[in-house]
Amino acid sequence: MNIHILGAGSLGLLYAAKLAAAGNDITLWCRGAQQAERIGTEGISLDNTAGERTLVQPDRIKAYPLSAFSARGGAEGADVLFLMLKQQGIEDMAKQVLLPFGHAKRRLICFQNGTGHMELLNRYLPAWELYAAITTEGAKRTGPASVLHAGHGTTTIGRLPQAEGSSGQEQEDEAEIELVKQLNRAGFESFLSKEMEEMIYRKLLMNAVINPLTALWRVRNGELLASPQRVAIMRALYDEGMAVYKAGNIPCGSHLWEQIEQVCRSTSDNTSSMLKDVLEGRTTEAAWINGSIVRMGRRYRVATPHHELILQLIEGMTI
Amino acid sequence: MNIHILGAGSLGLLYAAKLAAAGNDITLWCRGAQQAERIGTEGISLDNTAGERTLVQPDRIKAYPLSAFSARGGAEGADVLFLMLKQQGIEDMAKQVLLPFGHAKRRLICFQNGTGHMELLNRYLPAWELYAAITTEGAKRTGPASVLHAGHGTTTIGRLPQAEGSSGQEQEDEAEIELVKQLNRAGFESFLSKEMEEMIYRKLLMNAVINPLTALWRVRNGELLASPQRVAIMRALYDEGMAVYKAGNIPCGSHLWEQIEQVCRSTSDNTSSMLKDVLEGRTTEAAWINGSIVRMGRRYRVATPHHELILQLIEGMTI
Repeated sequence: MNIHILGAGSLGLLYAAKLAAAGNDITLWCRGAQQAERIGTEGISLDNTAGERTLVQPDRIKAYPLSAFSARGGAEGADVLFLMLKQQGIEDMAKQVLLPFGHAKRRLICFQNGTGHMELLNRYLPAWELYAAITTEGAKRTGPASVLHAGHGTTTIGRLPQAEGSSGQEQEDEAEIELVKQLNRAGFESFLSKEMEEMIYRKLLMNAVINPLTALWRVRNGELLASPQRVAIMRALYDEGMAVYKAGNIPCGSHLWEQIEQVCRSTSDNTSSMLKDVLEGRTTEAAWINGSIVRMGRRYRVATPHHELILQLIEGMTI
Repeated sequence: MNIHILGAGSLGLLYAAKLAAAGNDITLWCRGAQQAERIGTEGISLDNTAGERTLVQPDRIKAYPLSAFSARGGAEGADVLFLMLKQQGIEDMAKQVLLPFGHAKRRLICFQNGTGHMELLNRYLPAWELYAAITTEGAKRTGPASVLHAGHGTTTIGRLPQAEGSSGQEQEDEAEIELVKQLNRAGFESFLSKEMEEMIYRKLLMNAVINPLTALWRVRNGELLASPQRVAIMRALYDEGMAVYKAGNIPCGSHLWEQIEQVCRSTSDNTSSMLKDVLEGRTTEAAWINGSIVRMGRRYRVATPHHELILQLIEGMTI
């Protein structure tokens, strides 16, 4: 399968390496020219937690800087594109790199949290078919051309309900089925789902409750449950989010609060990505996580003072 | 002058040592019997930042545990008592130690932030004359019987407007004037003020804006001004507090926001007491600082969502 991956962070490197190793035709688009050159000459080194190393040879993978996307044909001929950039950079990248191909036919799988970026992409790329993906694979970038596969998870892919004006489609098509087959062959346990919207909004609120509090308090996920005071604030964020979901008639299934507690327990030793970002002085994803709840709250006229202040406090942590 | 000091933390030790050295008759009431015994046998060792050490001999100072307050006559004969305990312990101490003497004549100077503790003391000790004091002396307890005078400041003392039912008094009386004289003789630059209420509420809001944010973000006072995002949250806390003050017709002078910014600049390298408490895993004074604003907000029907959530977040930091 001809797969283009936009973004060579931890997830981009992991999917590129394993899909290439399984025989797919992989093009990896990097933020920087240096990283692309490095991968072009060295390939990608892939470690697993058992201490085994696989080297994906440079002839098995093409790597270019995103700035060359247009000059190199805008991923023409790709069966599918994976969008594996951080949410923070998507709007600029879409404007600068993808916009000239907005009326061409492309199929794009978006691996980010929430849905704000997809609404935005739909505006810039009206002819593209957009999919959402949720992955729980664990990956850690160990260098510009090396990645550790830190933990196995699942990859779920599906279309969101169509935005106005785009063509609806209810049946799984062959290309979707083929993609999931290739992902599974490459070692990613993968599924097609018709409930992506529900999964996305469940994950969004879960992240909006867990991540900012771990970052503010600088604690591991499990420590959120360590005092009734902490649980009370989690609950306040949850209740506010649920009020927004109800007002917007947004599907999010049942027992979400219980799942949030369960995630804290089952990932109790984990440092959340937001805490990692804070500890390393990087911009966090709070604007796309709690910020999404705030924006949805405005749209459906539900006050979200807790998410608003939490977002401001997270943004105040770094200068 | 016969002065009883309740509480032998850093400020209690400092005032006891210097007032005793200046020839006053000092009784120091300690939380623990061990500390009282230690001071009773060793006196108090007082260091200054120039490296000079003064030893206040044990015969110049009486030290007893607070638990013996009643058995030893409840400070009968004292010209004045200083309340130098942390706010956290005042209610319990008042009930357990002072209550039996609530209808005796005593003059009590309270060195805590805010006014909540004074309303409470007024209920337990209806016959006592209550004063508020604000001190900017710097003291650091270096042992159970030793203290470092870390920086010179000022001590301002005054009565709050009388609570209902107690006798009003507008003139400074001789004992007040004598107390300030003795404090100055002992090396504390001291004043009587008729604007204590304004000073207290200015200091309260200043602390409610600066302290919790330094603690949450783990930054020094000056770093609060380092980004517009940070200043925006300070300003939101300030505006909420000012709305409460306006609704309650509470005096707080003018240019308070400018003074808050000025304090951040002039104490830019300081670690706030709340951040110190958080870093050392102790309960903070947030319940008496932001909590006071929240309680006043309820009384005057002004919403204080920022102070409420900030208070909860501070309380969530420690478990």
